[in-house]
Amino acid sequence: MNFLEERIVKDGIVKEGNVLKVDSFLNHQMDIALFEQMGEEFKKRFEGCNINKILTIEASGIGIACIVAKYFNAPVVFAKKSKSINIEGEMYCADVESFTHKNVNQVIVSKKFLGPEDHVLIIDDFLANGCALQGLISIVNQAGGTVEGIGIAIEKGFQVGGRIIRNLGIKLESLAIVDGMDAATGTITFREQ
Amino acid sequence: MNFLEERIVKDGIVKEGNVLKVDSFLNHQMDIALFEQMGEEFKKRFEGCNINKILTIEASGIGIACIVAKYFNAPVVFAKKSKSINIEGEMYCADVESFTHKNVNQVIVSKKFLGPEDHVLIIDDFLANGCALQGLISIVNQAGGTVEGIGIAIEKGFQVGGRIIRNLGIKLESLAIVDGMDAATGTITFREQ
Repeated sequence: MNFLEERIVKDGIVKEGNVLKVDSFLNHQMDIALFEQMGEEFKKRFEGCNINKILTIEASGIGIACIVAKYFNAPVVFAKKSKSINIEGEMYCADVESFTHKNVNQVIVSKKFLGPEDHVLIIDDFLANGCALQGLISIVNQAGGTVEGIGIAIEKGFQVGGRIIRNLGIKLESLAIVDGMDAATGTITFREQ
Repeated sequence: MNFLEERIVKDGIVKEGNVLKVDSFLNHQMDIALFEQMGEEFKKRFEGCNINKILTIEASGIGIACIVAKYFNAPVVFAKKSKSINIEGEMYCADVESFTHKNVNQVIVSKKFLGPEDHVLIIDDFLANGCALQGLISIVNQAGGTVEGIGIAIEKGFQVGGRIIRNLGIKLESLAIVDGMDAATGTITFREQ
């Protein structure tokens, strides 16, 4: 097990319905030293990639993205969730279905901060059905930029998102891939990487 | 002028209605090297304070809080904006009026992550009327914790928030205090500190 898998086993809580709670260190309380280990690991995994911008989505991706960004000397842009319809042509936008909240959000990024010159590493905390990532990929494509890769903390390997993204030919690196969980015993099965 | 005031003059945009846009470096695209300078400066200004936790509010406070947290070796907790009414006693909550969006959000923090043992530095990007900060202070008080101080990137000195917070006897440090703006000329007047 790597450092993140060990931490998930130690502090993650498995709940009914394939819910994995990691809010004590990842997405409500945030362990910055852990995020720095994640930054080092992503730097290794995306060695040689020409990355000049980090893209994430509010809210829980922002903390990880900011710490990871230090390892790439790149600024972070975060996509905002918006219900507003009046976008005025100043924004890239994409529809994103939320697995957690069971609704559709419009996700927006100002056209000022993404363009054809950008080589983008997308960072997020969770990958499940992949809808958020597909929205971010769409936004980079609208900007004429290049998705150099995607770095995820925890992928739910038993959901379709990872397969869809990898089938697109995009370099996707998940630090922990959960292939199964058992709420009764609290057991978590990780994919060998 | 300090480093942040210089950056605001260089890249901030003054709009009608006392709006200061700093989305190219602070709250949409985020300059991580600038955030590190902010972390160093807050570390100096809160020297000697016994801080073991950073508290912020989603979304634009999170990036600054995570970088600042490195300088205090403390975890970050971010308060979530929620419309849900059913809180089940697991959460501290406070009502927060939004100056930008002209509505009221409930702001929540899990009781697991704040308690009487916590000495909290509250971090946010903007201080205007102070409603968000009052909500965060209320949450720390509900937890029985101690607000050691508040660190803000940009305070709008011509609005009431800063005066209210300082009148509460809380140590409030704003890296830039804007006392006036002129949209016609783009001029920004900073308070001498």
